[in-house]
Amino acid sequence: MTPERRLAGVLSPVLTPFKPDLSPDPDRFVRHCRWLVAQGVGLAVFGTNSEANSLSVGEKIELLDALLEAGVPAERLMPGTGHCALTDTVTLTRHAVRAGAAGVLMLPPFYYKGVSDEGLFNAYAQVIDRVADERLRIYLYHIPPVAQVPISLKLIERLLKAFPGTIAGIKDSSGDWANTQAMLEAFQPQGFDVFAGSESFLLATLRAGGAGCITATGNVNPAAIVQLAREWQGPEADAQQAALNAVRGVFAQHPMIPAMKAAIEWQSGGSGWGTVRPPLVALDAAQRASLQAGLTAQGFRIPEAATLA
Amino acid sequence: MTPERRLAGVLSPVLTPFKPDLSPDPDRFVRHCRWLVAQGVGLAVFGTNSEANSLSVGEKIELLDALLEAGVPAERLMPGTGHCALTDTVTLTRHAVRAGAAGVLMLPPFYYKGVSDEGLFNAYAQVIDRVADERLRIYLYHIPPVAQVPISLKLIERLLKAFPGTIAGIKDSSGDWANTQAMLEAFQPQGFDVFAGSESFLLATLRAGGAGCITATGNVNPAAIVQLAREWQGPEADAQQAALNAVRGVFAQHPMIPAMKAAIEWQSGGSGWGTVRPPLVALDAAQRASLQAGLTAQGFRIPEAATLA
Repeated sequence: MTPERRLAGVLSPVLTPFKPDLSPDPDRFVRHCRWLVAQGVGLAVFGTNSEANSLSVGEKIELLDALLEAGVPAERLMPGTGHCALTDTVTLTRHAVRAGAAGVLMLPPFYYKGVSDEGLFNAYAQVIDRVADERLRIYLYHIPPVAQVPISLKLIERLLKAFPGTIAGIKDSSGDWANTQAMLEAFQPQGFDVFAGSESFLLATLRAGGAGCITATGNVNPAAIVQLAREWQGPEADAQQAALNAVRGVFAQHPMIPAMKAAIEWQSGGSGWGTVRPPLVALDAAQRASLQAGLTAQGFRIPEAATLA
Repeated sequence: MTPERRLAGVLSPVLTPFKPDLSPDPDRFVRHCRWLVAQGVGLAVFGTNSEANSLSVGEKIELLDALLEAGVPAERLMPGTGHCALTDTVTLTRHAVRAGAAGVLMLPPFYYKGVSDEGLFNAYAQVIDRVADERLRIYLYHIPPVAQVPISLKLIERLLKAFPGTIAGIKDSSGDWANTQAMLEAFQPQGFDVFAGSESFLLATLRAGGAGCITATGNVNPAAIVQLAREWQGPEADAQQAALNAVRGVFAQHPMIPAMKAAIEWQSGGSGWGTVRPPLVALDAAQRASLQAGLTAQGFRIPEAATLA
């Protein structure tokens, strides 16, 4: 891998727009991805906030192919490819690597709980062996509040030793800064790129030598987050971080994924953007009003929102 | 549905045998299912203990088709069909219903946590609408220790009201007898069949009017469990329950799924039966020795074990 291909800065788990019949809307998806790239945001498509775990492998492959056919640059892509089933993870990872994706973000198999590091090591090792492609770059996905299957420091150490180069980094969505700090200290110096799981920790992560953040709100507030990632050494950095936190706080007072979709529907005028797949539920009228009031109070607007309709 | 087709008694989440390359072994699977049916056990294939969440939809369809081609009776089948992704659940459920399965055991979508009853209701409703087959009989799968997405009494009530006949029952793997009791009291009288999630609660469930149990250890200790289900009103029932508990206790001192597979490998002489898919890990030599010692002390043996090799 040439250094310039290495993913860094701000990426976003790209929201997946749905049609009224709940099938993915590839046209809107492509437009949203193009807009994110134009804003300076990398494409962690098929993340938690993409409702990716509500999509089949086949649906994800179709969406990925739609992006590439539309000319979205593969070097900006870090698709989520981790499923419960080994064979699903292999199928999607192989497809992503062959399509030229710069990296993949890989959940551990997350149905069985209390599994050992040995079992998780074997799971990642099996995927690596079966994909058998030296272009594979795996970013581990540590999100214990949702997956309920954590990735320990000892597991990272073992994976890095067994698969140097292939194990490329991590998204830490633990929400536990002490854990992010421990990863930054132990592994970032080895070229293992630590991404914070939200922009709340962006400044702290960059100051500690980390790679950036992969954040849901990149879908709706990309310009300001990217600005901080570029100017983190400047005099305004703390104020910029505080402003990002205030906007995020409004979204976080609502169910995050439906709220981000509702914000895009509101600002773009794109009817139906707010649609989610079960088990998620779209915001109701009161929640939409509360969201809009909160965002208006922050002076929030989505840049070039009409592009997204 | 004719009354005699209604599933009851003892079912087991059928262990999935793997070949050395970790692909499912359909021949061994068919033989194991035939043996279970001969022992009086119904086939809850693709359950938690089947490592079903480590299998793709395509792998499950192939295994199901192998059973039917081998003449395993569809009226004894309650395949697990619940996936994270709506489209996966629909694909597998539709296949199972068209194949004539007496019922399906359906996990809620289990990746997203803290979702509302409204969202879970929508998830089940979407599956029912899309499968659109009056033969569909759904057994809800309540297993909060693993799925981390519980099925509440209020959700059951709402589903029963909206889809009477289609919502056929539940497997309660909460391990919380008070919860099972509440379901038995509120819903069993409406013809909603409550199955305990293990044989530990079999006698209590049958005494309270429930339908039976769906239990992992049915894979290895079927005859004794079936005997209690048949003789639960007899004078030996409490002693029979105690004996079942003692055997289960030995398995439960080890990782359950690998331990059951190791017991079959041991007693049948079927080399490789102990193989599991990551993230599970097969028992090591010390664990196997401990398991065998514990089972021997209980006088445990698998009936007609050679059939399973």
